Amino acid sequence: MTRSVADLLFRPRSIVVYGASSDPDKLSGRPLDYLKRFGFSGQIYAVNPRRPEVQGIRAYAKVADVPGPVDLAIVVVPAPAVVEAIRACADAGVGAAIIFASGFAEIGADGRPQQDEISAIARRTGMRVVGPNCLGSFAAEDRAFATFSTAFDEDGERAVSPIALASQSGAVGTFTYSTMNAVGLGVTYFANTGNEADVTVTEILSALVDAPDVKVLMGHIEGCGNMEALATLASAARERGKPLIILKSGRTPAGARAVAAHTASAAGDDTAFEVVLTAHGAIRVPSMEAMADTALALVDGRRAAGRRLTIVTLSGGGGALAADRAVELGLQVDTWASEQDRSVLAAELPYFGSTMNPIDVTGAMINDLSLLERTLRIVSDNEDTDAILVLLGNADRGSDEIVATLIKAHRATNKPFLVAWTGGSGRPRTALLQAGVPTYTDPHRATECMSRVIHVDLPST
Amino acid sequence: MTRSVADLLFRPRSIVVYGASSDPDKLSGRPLDYLKRFGFSGQIYAVNPRRPEVQGIRAYAKVADVPGPVDLAIVVVPAPAVVEAIRACADAGVGAAIIFASGFAEIGADGRPQQDEISAIARRTGMRVVGPNCLGSFAAEDRAFATFSTAFDEDGERAVSPIALASQSGAVGTFTYSTMNAVGLGVTYFANTGNEADVTVTEILSALVDAPDVKVLMGHIEGCGNMEALATLASAARERGKPLIILKSGRTPAGARAVAAHTASAAGDDTAFEVVLTAHGAIRVPSMEAMADTALALVDGRRAAGRRLTIVTLSGGGGALAADRAVELGLQVDTWASEQDRSVLAAELPYFGSTMNPIDVTGAMINDLSLLERTLRIVSDNEDTDAILVLLGNADRGSDEIVATLIKAHRATNKPFLVAWTGGSGRPRTALLQAGVPTYTDPHRATECMSRVIHVDLPST
Repeated sequence: MTRSVADLLFRPRSIVVYGASSDPDKLSGRPLDYLKRFGFSGQIYAVNPRRPEVQGIRAYAKVADVPGPVDLAIVVVPAPAVVEAIRACADAGVGAAIIFASGFAEIGADGRPQQDEISAIARRTGMRVVGPNCLGSFAAEDRAFATFSTAFDEDGERAVSPIALASQSGAVGTFTYSTMNAVGLGVTYFANTGNEADVTVTEILSALVDAPDVKVLMGHIEGCGNMEALATLASAARERGKPLIILKSGRTPAGARAVAAHTASAAGDDTAFEVVLTAHGAIRVPSMEAMADTALALVDGRRAAGRRLTIVTLSGGGGALAADRAVELGLQVDTWASEQDRSVLAAELPYFGSTMNPIDVTGAMINDLSLLERTLRIVSDNEDTDAILVLLGNADRGSDEIVATLIKAHRATNKPFLVAWTGGSGRPRTALLQAGVPTYTDPHRATECMSRVIHVDLPST
Repeated sequence: MTRSVADLLFRPRSIVVYGASSDPDKLSGRPLDYLKRFGFSGQIYAVNPRRPEVQGIRAYAKVADVPGPVDLAIVVVPAPAVVEAIRACADAGVGAAIIFASGFAEIGADGRPQQDEISAIARRTGMRVVGPNCLGSFAAEDRAFATFSTAFDEDGERAVSPIALASQSGAVGTFTYSTMNAVGLGVTYFANTGNEADVTVTEILSALVDAPDVKVLMGHIEGCGNMEALATLASAARERGKPLIILKSGRTPAGARAVAAHTASAAGDDTAFEVVLTAHGAIRVPSMEAMADTALALVDGRRAAGRRLTIVTLSGGGGALAADRAVELGLQVDTWASEQDRSVLAAELPYFGSTMNPIDVTGAMINDLSLLERTLRIVSDNEDTDAILVLLGNADRGSDEIVATLIKAHRATNKPFLVAWTGGSGRPRTALLQAGVPTYTDPHRATECMSRVIHVDLPST
């Protein structure tokens, strides 16, 4: 039985590094180093005609000499040697090959024929090809680090979240990964597809849509020739309740020129792209930062039953900013219908706060923290509240207790619960993130993420 | 001669704390503590009927007993005692009074009459009133810390930038200040106006528009009853080449309700507000983070001669994202007209980079840093380039040299020069900020700031 592209890339039984160097600092030496150092669970081989052994791994002169089936070949030879290597891999029955080298269709007529030849080999033989012009892939569990990127070469424990991130741009992928790391998120599967001579971002995410260890799918796309495949992916993701977050370049002529120079992609009709995403409830984001922000809001799997957002703030001014943005994005920020809840709140809040939504607990909260605790309990139980946004800021002084109160309140409800903590040292924010409370630096960013959480299951208005 | 509101607040010859407490940790004790500790250069007095001395400062039973003229009174008594205090200050010839207490028009009918009385006293006597429901003001040079906010109570050196920040919301003001601090910016003048019984954000910024130590004016506004004053401010700022950055709440019904509950402001007609700002080249931002971002881009005073942006990137994907956003915001991201420059670039860049705009120096830059240096020199000198955006990321490895190259290139040109450094540890970003290179976490944010820099002197398209 043929293995899926996800199995070959992320759960390979064996990996061969084609052209492996003995210097682990060189691009062509890094994959072997990573596979060994991070403890890849399958078989590792090298192909190197000049040495019997590379970095302690048995090397073969030709890929055909490698014993047993090879699921994945990491091709690290320079561009002029790539077509021959790919042909040899296909002839040897390799399942999939990743090509790092640049210098193909993205440089124009000088590189296009070689890339076309690679595509033709893939089509003819059934061997799957990732790249060229990519930095590879990795799977956290199997430790299949088929990459030369130093972005994953971290000391200490690597955060793993139930997220698949596939990107057409290597740097956008690793920058996004690193931005996610900064808020405590990792990924389970990562792949960069580059010029997409064969395998696309859409195909990789489609192959992972049923994976039980993936709850959020993230894709960066430069070209999109296959709208049908995109629609199928988006629709499958929605059916399974797995948010699909898409960052797409090439909306403008300058952007389209840039993606053509970068991965030889045709950016295509942006309106058509947008229509497909919107029709199937996928989430389009404008930036890498927004991509990471959005994953943070969605990864805990909480979903809102409706559009009614309750904002709890110690800053009336911050509450107004968030309320404006929320309403612009189609959320409801209304005074509660429940008179009983309103009167209980009125009894809790000092006379200069507001029991209307946004609920302003004011700076008095700092001196009497139970005020925040009691307010959040009422909000969690309130039937007119589908999602909760808490706005705080500065004030390291006393922040440990505030953080503890927020963590407790977050755990006590199943409603989406996002926090913005603006300014200050960053210490309270870090503590909240470590406890799994999605926390942002600015009410505006938090509100935009909240609208995405709410719109996963509800069409935008 | 009557002193202006800016002189009274920011260059007072004498300050009296009305109702000063002997406990420096209490709200009513903090202003005296700050004035002493931060070294206010003028006279300090206290009014306290129960003590001859407060925190080592001579206290008088009544404000009328204070010898010599009083420029500024900080009124720290609770709400029920405020009207009487204000009356006493006005009768004693005080120049301006700041009222901290809440519980006035923002709570509705129960507080409106007292606030109206305060407004009437100000009108009748000419004493200027800041607040109520505010946290005060400070001036960095004179160390006139007329505030109870702990946001300015920092250890170590306080960053001072040629910026005036006036906000109607105390928390929005201090959160923004703190967000600015995180990127190395400070302010020269800060004021929070709260309910604006008399003095408004618009008036404070207008009074500072000619100050030689102010290059950027920042305002957070909740209500705007006086469009004429706003137009005058915006027009005066533009004439002097000082960017005016405005954050305004109350665009939506929920936002308008929130500002009414917060500072009893009428949010007014948002379209009219927008029209006035746009007509006079003021910059409206959507969030506190965007406000700080924008100040960072504008504070060095560099301005673009045109809309032609050149993007230099090591990530083709990141370049495409930035190019899209730039074009959407009315900038030009075009391939250079200068054939000579294009051919010099083509000789510099590796065959898989791009010499079209965005210029993609690719990861090869890491191994040959002179590539970035030479490219930036060509870009700086290029006649088709009005502004420069550099996109980098991750890679702490070797970042010291990259940072040094960027700092040198930034200093070698007068063109606006912004950097986005995405992901990684944050260390390179901090080093760039410390050297005065405006640096952002994401190309999208940097591009939005660049569009604001370019549109200061050029109408939006």
